[in-house]
Amino acid sequence: MQSKGKKTIQQAIEHALKRILQQKVSLFSSGRTDAGVHAKAQVANFKTNSVIKTSSLQKSLNSLLPKDISIVKVENVSLDFNSRFCTKSKVYRYTILNRKYPSALLRNTSYFCSYPLDLRLIIRESKVLVGKHDFKSFQATDKIEKGSVRTIKSIKLKKNGDIIYIDIEANGFLKNMARNIIGTLIEVGRGKLPPGSVKKILLAKDRRRAGPTIEAKGLCLLRVFY
Amino acid sequence: MQSKGKKTIQQAIEHALKRILQQKVSLFSSGRTDAGVHAKAQVANFKTNSVIKTSSLQKSLNSLLPKDISIVKVENVSLDFNSRFCTKSKVYRYTILNRKYPSALLRNTSYFCSYPLDLRLIIRESKVLVGKHDFKSFQATDKIEKGSVRTIKSIKLKKNGDIIYIDIEANGFLKNMARNIIGTLIEVGRGKLPPGSVKKILLAKDRRRAGPTIEAKGLCLLRVFY
Repeated sequence: MQSKGKKTIQQAIEHALKRILQQKVSLFSSGRTDAGVHAKAQVANFKTNSVIKTSSLQKSLNSLLPKDISIVKVENVSLDFNSRFCTKSKVYRYTILNRKYPSALLRNTSYFCSYPLDLRLIIRESKVLVGKHDFKSFQATDKIEKGSVRTIKSIKLKKNGDIIYIDIEANGFLKNMARNIIGTLIEVGRGKLPPGSVKKILLAKDRRRAGPTIEAKGLCLLRVFY
Repeated sequence: MQSKGKKTIQQAIEHALKRILQQKVSLFSSGRTDAGVHAKAQVANFKTNSVIKTSSLQKSLNSLLPKDISIVKVENVSLDFNSRFCTKSKVYRYTILNRKYPSALLRNTSYFCSYPLDLRLIIRESKVLVGKHDFKSFQATDKIEKGSVRTIKSIKLKKNGDIIYIDIEANGFLKNMARNIIGTLIEVGRGKLPPGSVKKILLAKDRRRAGPTIEAKGLCLLRVFY
């Protein structure tokens, strides 16, 4: 899914559901994504007393919804399922195009970095972040959560030609956390921050120490685990 | 490269070249692509007496051009090189998303087909088209070329999960030829045209016999060989 215009994805789906089910329903997603962030697998739930078949509902939704929203799966769940609070972990993927010249075709779904990146250094530095930590240094300054402790299960880096994917799996993400981590790792990979920086930034619990919030368009919610 | 708005890609590049080289140049491409067709590797040449380094020119062009056009390579060629007439062959790739539900993220670069496709049948039928033939049946009716004989060097089908790529390499393409061939092969793969149809259509030399001109957005000029 992908955000478009002023109507949120949630509103668009609720609107389509109302038309199909002939009743007003409220949709609960696994959590908000920043504006401009893509989602390949957002999960949302709603309650209905309709007996429509899940396959028919999926088909009807996809034919009613605008083309920038697609319903990948519809399934029945128990009444106590909540797509937000039952989340075990989420995986965000950041896509970097790392070469001398930009790509017209990838311009909306990747971050273009023309500087050479030291991937081994990025991998080494990223290991410090794995585990249960206070990620205050990587939290957006405009939305301070009461608790900023989260557990990063893994940070994986894959390279496919000029494209680098960085996948972060965590039990939860603070606002801008993924983008601030990637922004910092890229600064390290470019040599703008010396080795050892990520550990110092993490321990500082101070947003001003970390790298920039990297642009949203390279980020994609890849999977939500329950 | 990708077309945007009313200004053609050619005009945009000529405009940027004029600013960089301080002289008006005319750009010659390997050929026009249909509106809506993407290009990963269009080739174009121009003549200049500037002594600017090719690497500097590439950098300047990419910084001046809109983000939906990117210059992948700039190189010096001999004065008698002509990007259109020196072409040995071109490869067009058609991307099909073949599953029950559409994809928001792939919506602008693939054709969504929810019907199961018999890929072995598509491969078998496509073999008839390989070689030197009169492709009149697959030519756009609004632009009849004097000669409609072309040589298809290969048609290759690749499957990656739900995505099917069909790559056609030919010494030249008539207007809409690639899209008409793919449209016909999909009709065969869906079972709407019986096995043996492609041969009959080819021999008929009649556009009305072939399948529909499939939508442009799934098509991409992948490579030009010289």
